Amino acid sequence: MTPAAQPWCQREGLALLTDLYELTMAAGYLKEHRPGHTVCFEYFFRSLPPHGGFAVAAGLEPFLDYLEHLRFADDDIDYLRSLGSFDEDFLEFLRGFRPACTVRAVPEGALVFPHEPVIQIEGDIVEGQLVETALLNMLNHQTLIATKAARICLASEGEPVFEFGLRRAHGPDGGLSGSRAAYIGGCTGTSNVLAGKVYGIPVSGTHAHSWVMSFDSELEAFRAFARNYPDKCILLVDTYSTTESGVPNAITVFKEMQAAGHKVRAAIRLDSGDLAKLSKAAYRMMTEAGFEDPLIVASNDLEEDLIADLKRQGAKINAWGVGTHLITSHDCPALSGVYKLVAVEEDGRWLPRMKISSNIEKATDPGRKAVVRYFDGQGHPVGDVLYLGDEEWPRAGTVIGRRRTQPLQEARIKDTARAESLFGVVFERGRRTLPPPLIGDIRQRALDNIASLPDEFKRLRNPERYRVMLSRAVGQIKADMLENPDQ
Amino acid sequence: MTPAAQPWCQREGLALLTDLYELTMAAGYLKEHRPGHTVCFEYFFRSLPPHGGFAVAAGLEPFLDYLEHLRFADDDIDYLRSLGSFDEDFLEFLRGFRPACTVRAVPEGALVFPHEPVIQIEGDIVEGQLVETALLNMLNHQTLIATKAARICLASEGEPVFEFGLRRAHGPDGGLSGSRAAYIGGCTGTSNVLAGKVYGIPVSGTHAHSWVMSFDSELEAFRAFARNYPDKCILLVDTYSTTESGVPNAITVFKEMQAAGHKVRAAIRLDSGDLAKLSKAAYRMMTEAGFEDPLIVASNDLEEDLIADLKRQGAKINAWGVGTHLITSHDCPALSGVYKLVAVEEDGRWLPRMKISSNIEKATDPGRKAVVRYFDGQGHPVGDVLYLGDEEWPRAGTVIGRRRTQPLQEARIKDTARAESLFGVVFERGRRTLPPPLIGDIRQRALDNIASLPDEFKRLRNPERYRVMLSRAVGQIKADMLENPDQ
Repeated sequence: MTPAAQPWCQREGLALLTDLYELTMAAGYLKEHRPGHTVCFEYFFRSLPPHGGFAVAAGLEPFLDYLEHLRFADDDIDYLRSLGSFDEDFLEFLRGFRPACTVRAVPEGALVFPHEPVIQIEGDIVEGQLVETALLNMLNHQTLIATKAARICLASEGEPVFEFGLRRAHGPDGGLSGSRAAYIGGCTGTSNVLAGKVYGIPVSGTHAHSWVMSFDSELEAFRAFARNYPDKCILLVDTYSTTESGVPNAITVFKEMQAAGHKVRAAIRLDSGDLAKLSKAAYRMMTEAGFEDPLIVASNDLEEDLIADLKRQGAKINAWGVGTHLITSHDCPALSGVYKLVAVEEDGRWLPRMKISSNIEKATDPGRKAVVRYFDGQGHPVGDVLYLGDEEWPRAGTVIGRRRTQPLQEARIKDTARAESLFGVVFERGRRTLPPPLIGDIRQRALDNIASLPDEFKRLRNPERYRVMLSRAVGQIKADMLENPDQ
Repeated sequence: MTPAAQPWCQREGLALLTDLYELTMAAGYLKEHRPGHTVCFEYFFRSLPPHGGFAVAAGLEPFLDYLEHLRFADDDIDYLRSLGSFDEDFLEFLRGFRPACTVRAVPEGALVFPHEPVIQIEGDIVEGQLVETALLNMLNHQTLIATKAARICLASEGEPVFEFGLRRAHGPDGGLSGSRAAYIGGCTGTSNVLAGKVYGIPVSGTHAHSWVMSFDSELEAFRAFARNYPDKCILLVDTYSTTESGVPNAITVFKEMQAAGHKVRAAIRLDSGDLAKLSKAAYRMMTEAGFEDPLIVASNDLEEDLIADLKRQGAKINAWGVGTHLITSHDCPALSGVYKLVAVEEDGRWLPRMKISSNIEKATDPGRKAVVRYFDGQGHPVGDVLYLGDEEWPRAGTVIGRRRTQPLQEARIKDTARAESLFGVVFERGRRTLPPPLIGDIRQRALDNIASLPDEFKRLRNPERYRVMLSRAVGQIKADMLENPDQ
């Protein structure tokens, strides 16, 4: 299997994948703050997609890949010069720019919750600003899709979900990066061949209606398909009439294959109509024809609620092809992750910063932080605490902190058995600290994490809200800064 | 300005940007249908995004670029071999594959409507199948975003709309291709620097909250920004309190700039809070301070309905920054365009094909078609007719055809003054027939087309349904095929 890093597109070509204001600010910082002004930015999101109880972190490895290869090429510099806003000093700085920040992050496949930092960038303010947009772009997108995939896989209750979304994805890379994220979130495979080649994701797919329509009859089309793919013969049965022609013709062909000595598992795909009714009818017809345990793949605008409802109706479907709703996260096509300045270093000390808002929910949590997850005796996560980066934290027992939105109010997590820091240093001195993990390992991490998450956070409707609280120190700083917003 | 074609990503690297079943079918066709089996596929969509009256076609030039560069590289072949499904004959065929199809299409920037073909691929069935997924991916995505942009620009009533969506886009190319489509749909510019470099789209952007927070005070931050960008000084005024500190500090700085001899247009950006109220307050404060006609840019989760509502409230906003809702087409993140086999050539004659469905709306319109648009005496489009490709069509007068869903029922478009075929041959013998247009020209075409479209199709709610009817010949074929679905 291929490493999970993203070889997509000339990596060196992404230096300008940024909002203009990042460059505008970078140029300004360079003039105003020389010499180096060390700061800390954190990425987090404020809310989960609707009805969600957790998110699956994804997008880190592609971001690190971007960071390792971040160089401003001559034609990038020429283009920026043509805008007439930047002086030669800044352009010369960009030409020599090499990433030097330290990145701490939650690994891909970890479960993350609103308001907790998922990535932290510590370094020169110019660099922190230069990488903001690409970081947001990659993390927001892949975390969104991995999270959607996890929900759909929860609805399928362990039955395989195949991602079929490329044709409705947001451009070539919306499909490619989306396939990657969907696999991390728990999908079994993808129809996207490029994602198979680039990321080593299992690929699958059989035929479309056009195959059937290009032959003089459906039966002839099925025979031809079986002749060519005797071992992977899943027949699409709804081109004309599923029960009147599609399934009967498929059964004829399965019998012919048997007669020719092939070992046959009857396998069909349904792509339209009443999937509950048609799957039951098709199941009955195939089993009555002597084909036990037929494979019935369903597709056609599926999403988690529809899958759950089909299961409730006893639909005889045992594999799910999910396209549009998965690859676009259709009911919520954007994760609103943000990237905020949380601390500034002065004379070796970290001074907290926060963005005030009239809405206390939107006020950021000040300080360069660490994320610690607490588990109960059975290994289930029970709550996370945001500590200051250099703060000591208890390893077990009852943990006392503060509420995010009422930072003078005490909050506690009782009877914890174990604690784990989610952050690790993943990048420093211009390089990853570890080789990129295999994508299969990332996916397995997500599966294990989801398995250990208590059910109340995994319901498709009204899940419990997972607790994320501030340490007493962070809470006190926040309370003080809310009192004195002028700083 | 740069040609609109898409130089993004190694073009040669997109051969595997396809669903696996396209290759599965291609390999099967190659065995079953040798020698060459000429067919015609058409791309169309069945419905517009909610509340929409029209779509802006986009994505053709990137698709043609893909097609011109479509080659299976050695490592593509090696990967396909590793799947164990394909024989060496097919792999050898792919190695030597060069596109040879004829492509007819509606140009980018044209307005298109449900059920009419936007692109038509005529050629060997193997090739038609191989390019399906990439075509759907590019056309669906870019048409979706261009259409959303056009709606937002209608709501802004001619005031500039800037696309600020990169951080919420679906991956790097979701942002890059999305910026391209948003510009075609009418946006004035983008924050995406890479889109500026690659496509020649005007870029804009000033500073973020982090700029303000990195200084000891807001006033100092504004002074520093003005010092660095005296000519492009738009100050973000909502980091602490818009009316208590942001606008007063901005006014102080504008006055200092004036005193220093700069010609100043007071310019601010609002990114949170009650945009109607705050913009009016900020306008009053700035005009009372002597700054006539201040520029007030608003951003923060804007979309067309919110913009229309802000205008209704008399908000003093004269430029709009739109991110998430535009770049993801948030209320409808996928255009459900499809690609269907419509005809098969036998002995030099085109035999129509159709996909039957129990839902007559979903039954396809058979035959290799042409799209003709009729205009009234004032140059407004009044309806489109789908003719057979080789059918003669009237140039003016009352046009009589058939209804799509009741193909025996007559339908008419009265008193037309002029007719125009929307299709042109854009690709043949492996190459574009014309050089790629400039993106500014595509955008202008869209603007002109939208201007000429009658208002009833441009309402934000309940627009009229633009008429698309079948010619009598197409209607008769459809009626006959519905009668005899066995073909």
